[in-house]
Amino acid sequence: MSRISNRDRILSEGLRVVHQQGFGGASVRDIIGAAGVPQGSFTNHFASKEAFGLEVLNLYYASAKARMAETLLDERLAPLQRMRKWVGVIKTAIGEGDSKTGCMLGNFSAEATHCDGCIRKRLAEIFDEMQATIATCLEAAVQAGELPAGFNCAETAGFILSSMQGAILLAKAHRDLAPITQFEQVLFSKVLA
Amino acid sequence: MSRISNRDRILSEGLRVVHQQGFGGASVRDIIGAAGVPQGSFTNHFASKEAFGLEVLNLYYASAKARMAETLLDERLAPLQRMRKWVGVIKTAIGEGDSKTGCMLGNFSAEATHCDGCIRKRLAEIFDEMQATIATCLEAAVQAGELPAGFNCAETAGFILSSMQGAILLAKAHRDLAPITQFEQVLFSKVLA
Repeated sequence: MSRISNRDRILSEGLRVVHQQGFGGASVRDIIGAAGVPQGSFTNHFASKEAFGLEVLNLYYASAKARMAETLLDERLAPLQRMRKWVGVIKTAIGEGDSKTGCMLGNFSAEATHCDGCIRKRLAEIFDEMQATIATCLEAAVQAGELPAGFNCAETAGFILSSMQGAILLAKAHRDLAPITQFEQVLFSKVLA
Repeated sequence: MSRISNRDRILSEGLRVVHQQGFGGASVRDIIGAAGVPQGSFTNHFASKEAFGLEVLNLYYASAKARMAETLLDERLAPLQRMRKWVGVIKTAIGEGDSKTGCMLGNFSAEATHCDGCIRKRLAEIFDEMQATIATCLEAAVQAGELPAGFNCAETAGFILSSMQGAILLAKAHRDLAPITQFEQVLFSKVLA
């Protein structure tokens, strides 16, 4: 029981430290310090820092995925309302951290993809899955007549996903939500008009 | 002379190493190793790794700025042609590195902004300057009748800048230029239509 509990503590506190300091900027010492576990505990539970990073990434994505399900796939709302809700929920979440931590998926993309390891491959899978969920919402909007027949849902979904990541990245650099607000404005007044 | 030359070598080779491995992922040992200079040379020339990072950032931005001047501000072309040329030139540059290094401005934004130091402040200034240059090109498009009167140039410029960063970031995660192509398509068919 105690071993499992140390592992969970390393993951949950490690996620917080990695989100705040970046994957490269968070040393194993920082992580075990935050988790309040003994030195050897990290190596007992994780084969490498990359193996730990992959689990942290999956843990973070589980929340992002739940957030998408609660918004983009919420059939009680009109499809473009779902999209507005998703963007709004992310904006609120980013703002809570003073915009400075950004999105961990984007942060990992910037700093952990020069090596073609398991983290890069998992990120590519995650982004594909997110793009497919966004496309599902856009297809529902076409069905509902909110977007024209023949609307390119797959391409636009890719555009929305990457533009959202870029807006979060610039919000992090500026410590200001304005880039996300600009994204929201242009998305709904031009791209999904 | 020799001291100046070591400094330049540390900066030019350091820029390459930081672009490939990230700022956190590039140790001082990696940098002096690539520059082929003695151990003490780094500390002789830079007060800290952050001071070195700021100079690398400025060196990288000088190229990005020149690229903007040669495209977005090239008055021999119609304004929206300038924009197409800028996006195309960036896409080519990103593709040359197998899409895996990304844009150093975005990479620094992801990993060097949790501390509110000189690098974050410089990034915010750089992005403001880039947004103003994009806005200048959009204003020229309004003047030329390529965009409607009353077009929100400032907001759209911010959107273009952050969306471009996001597309480069996802291209890096996927090691594929498709996110930049999607951005290009949606930008010219919807946002600037």
